[in-house]
Amino acid sequence: MIVVMKKNAHQEDVQRLVEYIEQAGLRPHLSDGSTHTIIGVIGAREAIDVLALEALPGVEKAVPVSSGLNLVSRDVKESNTIVTVGDAQIGGTELAVMAGPCAVESKEQLREAALAVKAGGAQFLRGGAYKPRTSPYAFQGLEEQGLKFLAEVSQEVGLQVVTEVVDVESLDLVSNYADMLQIGARNMQNFKLLQAVGKKGKPVLLKRGLSATIEEWLQASEYILREGNFQLVLCERGIRTFEPFTRNTLDLSAVAAAKMLSHLPVIVDPSHATGKWNLVAPMARAAIAAGADGLMVEVHPEPARALCDGNQSLTPKNFNLLMNEVRSFAGLMGRSLS
Amino acid sequence: MIVVMKKNAHQEDVQRLVEYIEQAGLRPHLSDGSTHTIIGVIGAREAIDVLALEALPGVEKAVPVSSGLNLVSRDVKESNTIVTVGDAQIGGTELAVMAGPCAVESKEQLREAALAVKAGGAQFLRGGAYKPRTSPYAFQGLEEQGLKFLAEVSQEVGLQVVTEVVDVESLDLVSNYADMLQIGARNMQNFKLLQAVGKKGKPVLLKRGLSATIEEWLQASEYILREGNFQLVLCERGIRTFEPFTRNTLDLSAVAAAKMLSHLPVIVDPSHATGKWNLVAPMARAAIAAGADGLMVEVHPEPARALCDGNQSLTPKNFNLLMNEVRSFAGLMGRSLS
Amino acid sequence: MIVVMKKNAHQEDVQRLVEYIEQAGLRPHLSDGSTHTIIGVIGAREAIDVLALEALPGVEKAVPVSSGLNLVSRDVKESNTIVTVGDAQIGGTELAVMAGPCAVESKEQLREAALAVKAGGAQFLRGGAYKPRTSPYAFQGLEEQGLKFLAEVSQEVGLQVVTEVVDVESLDLVSNYADMLQIGARNMQNFKLLQAVGKKGKPVLLKRGLSATIEEWLQASEYILREGNFQLVLCERGIRTFEPFTRNTLDLSAVAAAKMLSHLPVIVDPSHATGKWNLVAPMARAAIAAGADGLMVEVHPEPARALCDGNQSLTPKNFNLLMNEVRSFAGLMGRSLS
Amino acid sequence: MIVVMKKNAHQEDVQRLVEYIEQAGLRPHLSDGSTHTIIGVIGAREAIDVLALEALPGVEKAVPVSSGLNLVSRDVKESNTIVTVGDAQIGGTELAVMAGPCAVESKEQLREAALAVKAGGAQFLRGGAYKPRTSPYAFQGLEEQGLKFLAEVSQEVGLQVVTEVVDVESLDLVSNYADMLQIGARNMQNFKLLQAVGKKGKPVLLKRGLSATIEEWLQASEYILREGNFQLVLCERGIRTFEPFTRNTLDLSAVAAAKMLSHLPVIVDPSHATGKWNLVAPMARAAIAAGADGLMVEVHPEPARALCDGNQSLTPKNFNLLMNEVRSFAGLMGRSLS
Repeated sequence: MIVVMKKNAHQEDVQRLVEYIEQAGLRPHLSDGSTHTIIGVIGAREAIDVLALEALPGVEKAVPVSSGLNLVSRDVKESNTIVTVGDAQIGGTELAVMAGPCAVESKEQLREAALAVKAGGAQFLRGGAYKPRTSPYAFQGLEEQGLKFLAEVSQEVGLQVVTEVVDVESLDLVSNYADMLQIGARNMQNFKLLQAVGKKGKPVLLKRGLSATIEEWLQASEYILREGNFQLVLCERGIRTFEPFTRNTLDLSAVAAAKMLSHLPVIVDPSHATGKWNLVAPMARAAIAAGADGLMVEVHPEPARALCDGNQSLTPKNFNLLMNEVRSFAGLMGRSLS
Repeated sequence: MIVVMKKNAHQEDVQRLVEYIEQAGLRPHLSDGSTHTIIGVIGAREAIDVLALEALPGVEKAVPVSSGLNLVSRDVKESNTIVTVGDAQIGGTELAVMAGPCAVESKEQLREAALAVKAGGAQFLRGGAYKPRTSPYAFQGLEEQGLKFLAEVSQEVGLQVVTEVVDVESLDLVSNYADMLQIGARNMQNFKLLQAVGKKGKPVLLKRGLSATIEEWLQASEYILREGNFQLVLCERGIRTFEPFTRNTLDLSAVAAAKMLSHLPVIVDPSHATGKWNLVAPMARAAIAAGADGLMVEVHPEPARALCDGNQSLTPKNFNLLMNEVRSFAGLMGRSLS
Repeated sequence: MIVVMKKNAHQEDVQRLVEYIEQAGLRPHLSDGSTHTIIGVIGAREAIDVLALEALPGVEKAVPVSSGLNLVSRDVKESNTIVTVGDAQIGGTELAVMAGPCAVESKEQLREAALAVKAGGAQFLRGGAYKPRTSPYAFQGLEEQGLKFLAEVSQEVGLQVVTEVVDVESLDLVSNYADMLQIGARNMQNFKLLQAVGKKGKPVLLKRGLSATIEEWLQASEYILREGNFQLVLCERGIRTFEPFTRNTLDLSAVAAAKMLSHLPVIVDPSHATGKWNLVAPMARAAIAAGADGLMVEVHPEPARALCDGNQSLTPKNFNLLMNEVRSFAGLMGRSLS
Repeated sequence: MIVVMKKNAHQEDVQRLVEYIEQAGLRPHLSDGSTHTIIGVIGAREAIDVLALEALPGVEKAVPVSSGLNLVSRDVKESNTIVTVGDAQIGGTELAVMAGPCAVESKEQLREAALAVKAGGAQFLRGGAYKPRTSPYAFQGLEEQGLKFLAEVSQEVGLQVVTEVVDVESLDLVSNYADMLQIGARNMQNFKLLQAVGKKGKPVLLKRGLSATIEEWLQASEYILREGNFQLVLCERGIRTFEPFTRNTLDLSAVAAAKMLSHLPVIVDPSHATGKWNLVAPMARAAIAAGADGLMVEVHPEPARALCDGNQSLTPKNFNLLMNEVRSFAGLMGRSLS
């Protein structure tokens, strides 16, 4: 940590700060600039992070030096992490595509969607059995029945299941049916859930929170990794900004940045990011070009009748067109798509 | 819901939409403007909310008419709700003040803080036993030991305990020690926790999420109310914006707006909102002037040595000065403070 | 400036950086932390600000130490600046209130508004003659005719005129009629206009830009002050956030912060901030409680027929009620209102 | 415009509103929903836009139906606009690339940059002669000398000049030297400048404002088009959000959206958007994949010694690598790059 003293800080303020740092078992390192005295704090990060030095007189600001990242950082592990789910991989040469309806509504709807996404080249079937909805009056999902449909249909069609787990209580149940556990954007800082999922050891997909910084997203990952679970994939799904035309603002720089700072795979969900089905294809192409390791896309046999997120869902036909485009872009990025 | 057709929408697009609406058991109401055809959708809100009409050809936009609010709305209950916690009330004539350290660190620290906040005129002791922290390497709280200290000290000093519950697992445990359950900003849309807390029946403090709109905040409240628990208080604690000088941006318009839209009491946390102890007093005064029903303030015997949020904590002396100011402003608002 | 090297920076990276700094006529000051090498750059701020050290290999980040503020800073001038406009003052004991219609529409409309705001206790008549409108098809103002009405009515009623100047071309013209020149939010970083207004020497009201940080707002002020014009008042008018309920989000922490960092007076415009007439009164009270030196409020004889911003305008009657409230709050803050 | 009445609106409120609408020469169209009365307002948009109906009792909200877009809209002109600048085109099959230093510093620096960008395949030389800087103490540009260097070097090397015009005063001067006029992000709503540039008739590049919505950006374009100048290109350069890792957040959905809503060409500036040279290449590729018609990229012979924006500038070598990548992606999009 670096402490910048105020221009008019008294000598006794500096002295008090130095003593404070020493009492905390740390080492101060003074340097007098032309206008400000600057004090570096040297020692173990855990001891430094706890200091609230801006509460002391004469201090203008305290700037952290370390990022607070550890296991998730490329400084710690240089090579890309590859996550394996059944016979699919995420983060390797092949792009990973997860597709399916927002919510599991019926076995027929799910099967129709699954056949379409399989035909298009996806390796994963997505579909919500537990739906966290802004309003308690909206459709909340089929729960265990939905999980059963997911397991049955995916086995029949030959896809891996990725589905959201919304609390610790249902973690075991969801794990029985799912191949990969999704943590939703609203739960990105539900730390108890992160820890439980970390302990469970199943592959995890961690969506970025609506207003989470890249650093906070990586720190949330750290909660899972430090339980020993490195089967973790990040998912950018748009952040909240002032722009009303799109549901969220897709932050593709965050994909490139996360892959620079971390060794984890990163995929992109252009459906939730834009909220508009006709923006999904351009944003999916852009995601691949930005270096994403895959996509999560909403596909519904009949979007206008969907119980959830119909406005942003692709028809099977449009999904197929999209996959053909993605396949070409994948080639340019040195990636493939089955 | 009102559907605005595109300028160049075909007659068959309009016809298709009308059939769609009728098939959903709803009633369409057409009106031809000078440039756009507009179709009102009339019927039960539950049936309307599910329609994804923007997925249909020729539709420019679909605008919801109802807000999605129900029990929380002043349309449903006109008079102010008063929440009673022990011998304290929130939402009545007297302002409610909740104060204490960010985290319970030791019984001595807590007692010192409690005596100060009691002396200043607060009715509630706040303090975290379970601390949801961005980094897994930061201090996570004393857990049950912290709860015990809270219960013991509050009884000794004569204060009500308000403390955060972070998951369903620990809800019973926290409820044994706490008088009021706090849902933190990061859990505002942890719907399973909202439902469990609603069922528990204890008074609840619901903080606004970092990037939650006022409507989403009220919809989250709806999850608690519909379980039959009306002992609910809202807490504005700053939203995430581009401004880096303050930790968050305190949105006092949201206080006035929430009280206009809803019958629930609303308090303000200027400590988390600003992240700077020297902005707490002006924002606390402003909150009262905007019509807030109370305050939540961080107070620590020695802020610079706090294990959490020291930069934004008041010393006992500064808290006392603040309470004297607040008392004057309360009078002007027709409120009191003991 | 403080440079933090990457964890794995090579010794030659450090050496290259040191030479770079020395070649720029500055002095490097090394310090080895437990994980990162840190290099302080010492010398004249102008020479330091220009360095793009993050472009060099091995550099993790470069953190500026100085704020870039100079004449505007309390470090340079400790005592509050008081701006004098005719027989009115801003920043002294008496609160300054500027009120009137969004746009000058006719002499009758303006006179009716002026009589109301004078009766309520305002010292300034506001009203736009040049209206910068998002759409070119919206009412653009009466231009010089509007200025004449402002001058005539204000003299008749006994008020100072504050009105917006939108470009350098019309600066002389507007200055002939206005007592105080307003720079609108959209022009906060129109640096040519800032310089011209600085040279003109008339009192200036500088609104904060929609997405300007507090520091950028103060740096924009610096453009005016360094032309020798210290007759400058800042105006917080809401910032752009994700919240759709209000037109903007009023950032009252910025008022307290700006008064802490700078010696300039700060007033608040709750009309533009909220966009809703029924939120103006609570936000006006809150502004005074936060330490604002005054208010700018939209008042229109018949808001629903206003050519601009009717939704956020007070009727004369509501303005009068507001002024009575403000008067009480002023007293508590050691301020007065005529 | 559609007016939604409050649930508990009185019959007389509805009656008053109907009369209001009729007095304004417009036609009301009532429809009674299950909970709310809804009133469509039919007539000329100019008359409707001015109504401030939310100021009337009983009104919950007033929702505009028309977008306020006219000449800029694809509803008005379906085919893509192609802008011609010398022998270069923007919006046609070939991608347009504008590259060069942030600021013109010297003829040598500019020539070195120009040779590099020409070699890479750019058709335009960018470079600032007038630099609007946040701080008045930062380098403000060489002004006319810089313009001369731009004209001389571009002629020598064979490139079109695009450079920023910051005010109406210098418009003629800049037009003498430049082939295309850039309006910077901070001037996007400097309406007087937009009008003047519209009248000038030279090709224009309009950058999106830091916190401008897509609709506001298109409305700003409308100011230029209605002066008769259709030689207009839009440029997305990142918006202001809470994310601190990047200088701004590049909003590529806005590119796809702007091209959907409007017939104008849209290019992307990944340098200003990210503020980090090592994020420029992934975001440039993503921009092309999202459908952008070109790029604006900062290139400097020696970024670490740049007087402006060195951290985000590419070296000539990295620019060349980027152009090779862009060329491949262009092919997939049915575009070319010389």
